[in-house]
Amino acid sequence: MQQASGHTLKAFDEDIERLRALISQMGGLAEHAIQEAMRCLVDRDLDGALRVVEDDQKLDALEIETERRAVQLIALRAPMAGDLRDVVAALKISGVVERIGDYAKNIAKRVPQLENVGKIEPLSLLPEMARIAMQMVHDVLDAFVERDAEAAVRVCERDNAVDDFYDSIFRTLLTHMMENPHTIGQAAHLLFVAKNLERVGDHATNIAEMVYYAATGTHMADGLGRTVR
Amino acid sequence: MQQASGHTLKAFDEDIERLRALISQMGGLAEHAIQEAMRCLVDRDLDGALRVVEDDQKLDALEIETERRAVQLIALRAPMAGDLRDVVAALKISGVVERIGDYAKNIAKRVPQLENVGKIEPLSLLPEMARIAMQMVHDVLDAFVERDAEAAVRVCERDNAVDDFYDSIFRTLLTHMMENPHTIGQAAHLLFVAKNLERVGDHATNIAEMVYYAATGTHMADGLGRTVR
Repeated sequence: MQQASGHTLKAFDEDIERLRALISQMGGLAEHAIQEAMRCLVDRDLDGALRVVEDDQKLDALEIETERRAVQLIALRAPMAGDLRDVVAALKISGVVERIGDYAKNIAKRVPQLENVGKIEPLSLLPEMARIAMQMVHDVLDAFVERDAEAAVRVCERDNAVDDFYDSIFRTLLTHMMENPHTIGQAAHLLFVAKNLERVGDHATNIAEMVYYAATGTHMADGLGRTVR
Repeated sequence: MQQASGHTLKAFDEDIERLRALISQMGGLAEHAIQEAMRCLVDRDLDGALRVVEDDQKLDALEIETERRAVQLIALRAPMAGDLRDVVAALKISGVVERIGDYAKNIAKRVPQLENVGKIEPLSLLPEMARIAMQMVHDVLDAFVERDAEAAVRVCERDNAVDDFYDSIFRTLLTHMMENPHTIGQAAHLLFVAKNLERVGDHATNIAEMVYYAATGTHMADGLGRTVR
């Protein structure tokens, strides 16, 4: 905080806390959406999938609310340096979390096409891949709330596991397609489900870079998360 | 502009013009990247594809530069209302344009896997799909520079054409896979190329919504672009 006044300081802190709480709320909804979309996929729950699609509106509304509050905060409190970086990070992170919700919605929309899918090995791998990607989202938003740059770096490191899952599922699905040409349509939808989960991991990594910058004022070295350890 | 001083007004106008110029420059690079990625795909130009991947760093650097300038502008000029919305829009749009560059990079990375691809019908449809998506990006960034909300709405309306292309290519590729199981791997890569182009259209639509909000202060009705006309 650059302001000298204790009153202004308190007001800014309250505002940024509310902003962080909104982002946490969005993160909780996005995690739940991914989890539910995967459950509906495995259980062939068409009604549940429809709810996931409908519930995405809540995330859209919260993103608009976050932007409104962030812009108001900048206009009213004129934050500087680290505080301003925090507000800008909140603004950008809410956009990324909203897109993570879009991936959940996209997975849920594929459930009807996969209602009669037979035994395909990736159906048992995808939920585990989703679990890792979701945990990345959860942990990176915790890192944002705690302004913990180190925790953000650790989240990036885990993206390799998601990428490995993706490569493995991609190969398995192609083999399955060649051996069972009549299931190609369903397998193609599962390819996109895997791709969506891989993108969730990428987006968690993007958020980690934003958290790192907000907390430190420097940009995380390109690919740091992939080379450390 | 809320500031009474002519001097401050001029300074803000110069700053926001520079920000718009940066976004235009990013847009030009992103368009060129998509165009080049598609040319390399059709011509099996591996060296060219490598250059597209390498050149994506320029977009990443420009995004960081845009954010730096936008944050500096907010801190120094304390813009209000419409001016602040404009700066926030620039901040968000640069992030989306950077992602459009990522899609071009992703397409370019698939070129080596498609070097020996035989005659697949979508190979002639994809460049046309790319052309429409690229034109949407071009026009929506023009709309941003001109603060033209109506032009932004018209860009949204064209996303249907991109979606129709995607649906058609998706079906054609599945049929091709069933009839030529030995080309399933290559066809799967083309599925993702089509999906990437479809996402470019979606991102142009997202930018259109940001342009609309920046120019009018109200949010474009959900799905407006899909229902108007």
